[in-house]
Amino acid sequence: MGHGEETVAAEPIADPDDPRLEPYTRMRERDLVGRTRRFIAEGEVTLRLLLGPRARFRAESILLAPERWPGLAPDVAACRDKPPVYLADKAVMSAVTGFPIHRGVLAVGRRGPEPDPAALVPPAPAPALVLGLAGLTNHDNVGAAFRNAAAFGADAVLLDATSCDPLYRKSIRVSAGAALIQPFARLAPGQDWLTLARELDLEALALSPGAAESLDDLATPKRVLLILGTEGPGLDAATLGRARPVRIPMAPGFDSLNVATAAGIALQTIARGQGRLATVG
Amino acid sequence: MGHGEETVAAEPIADPDDPRLEPYTRMRERDLVGRTRRFIAEGEVTLRLLLGPRARFRAESILLAPERWPGLAPDVAACRDKPPVYLADKAVMSAVTGFPIHRGVLAVGRRGPEPDPAALVPPAPAPALVLGLAGLTNHDNVGAAFRNAAAFGADAVLLDATSCDPLYRKSIRVSAGAALIQPFARLAPGQDWLTLARELDLEALALSPGAAESLDDLATPKRVLLILGTEGPGLDAATLGRARPVRIPMAPGFDSLNVATAAGIALQTIARGQGRLATVG
Repeated sequence: MGHGEETVAAEPIADPDDPRLEPYTRMRERDLVGRTRRFIAEGEVTLRLLLGPRARFRAESILLAPERWPGLAPDVAACRDKPPVYLADKAVMSAVTGFPIHRGVLAVGRRGPEPDPAALVPPAPAPALVLGLAGLTNHDNVGAAFRNAAAFGADAVLLDATSCDPLYRKSIRVSAGAALIQPFARLAPGQDWLTLARELDLEALALSPGAAESLDDLATPKRVLLILGTEGPGLDAATLGRARPVRIPMAPGFDSLNVATAAGIALQTIARGQGRLATVG
Repeated sequence: MGHGEETVAAEPIADPDDPRLEPYTRMRERDLVGRTRRFIAEGEVTLRLLLGPRARFRAESILLAPERWPGLAPDVAACRDKPPVYLADKAVMSAVTGFPIHRGVLAVGRRGPEPDPAALVPPAPAPALVLGLAGLTNHDNVGAAFRNAAAFGADAVLLDATSCDPLYRKSIRVSAGAALIQPFARLAPGQDWLTLARELDLEALALSPGAAESLDDLATPKRVLLILGTEGPGLDAATLGRARPVRIPMAPGFDSLNVATAAGIALQTIARGQGRLATVG
């Protein structure tokens, strides 16, 4: 093979017990997440993000149905890490993982060290937009919030200790892969939102349907930490009392939004106010 | 019982084969939807909407775990239809329906006749905001779009013939009950969006990530039909070519939104532009 040629090979695997497939046989999430610090990515869009320049994690291996390989080989060739690629029929993939694999695209990724929240936020006086998720225990909502954070260019997503894992399989899927490129960090146990906001020179806005102030009437702060609580109970009184409560203007009579949708709408309003959205195509 | 007293009674049922529970034993959705024109509502928030003044359908019966009855009796008493209320333990409820009933609140509702789209849209020159869903075959997305339509005060939701049923159990649940109060209608097979828009004097805006015009730069039309297609393929070329394509301004590099979230953001932008949102609490 000549110098300078970008050639990548894929290895066919027919035996579901092949030891190279072992990480895929451990797809019970607790094992993956807790013990081995790995995660599973599914689908072509997500794999492309995992292999691309914005990925915050590296792929350890890739498992594809053979017919998916030609379309994805250029992405693997362009990826700096060149993870091994295994090819197996969907029937073998399903046997290995224990659930039906429809799209024929899987990868195992390796988590990095958890960053410090401060490391992800641009220092003052630069503009900043940070999303804080408090007590979000539903993987769909966390994934959807990440998708919206990426779409509206949030600098970081911060999660409290009780919010669920953005790298859980379903979170990644619902995020459309945003969980793999959107910078995020977890608060230390006991670390509180308002102290953090003060330390990072962010104005803490607490989204709450009952707030007197509407987001549309707000002179957008240059540096924002937007905090959302879970649907139903919402944010705790201590956070609400110390932050600046704001609400999304809605029609009278049905003031009910999904928490991730609310995050998206509020992020868009703030990002627009900060001038960070491409309004001219 | 004296004249003028509002008393409602509930009937305990212990036998899963009691004939009064028969509609609940047919919860396979195709049967309910296609043959009997009924639907199932679950949960307290949704039941309250079904019994309330904005409901577009009537409850045929209600099935509650006994402990839920005291809290809901006032809503039944205030409801004009006074549907019969049956009480059964959650174990009986689960045995009857064939899936685990956690919240202990179910109702069977009866669909009405399908309205004509024109009947739901305020006549010109009044302002109008109508959401059009084209080819949405995912019940979560349809439910979430209804929730957002209700939150931002859309006059109506219109669905093409291929979009799925807003009164499917999962759609109602994801809509947080909005599917029971938000006026909606289905296009006749072959009826096209642009002809309908012209007939109803609505400006057709087609949401598309590739559109040149940003929603934020738009002088909001007074009467809008906002059309969304499914994620991925998007709207068909004929609709895009004849409508006015608009996009949601996003951050560079990740222009990907869930279709229901996109509907929510676009509806909010338009409703705000039309002055129909309560910005002062």
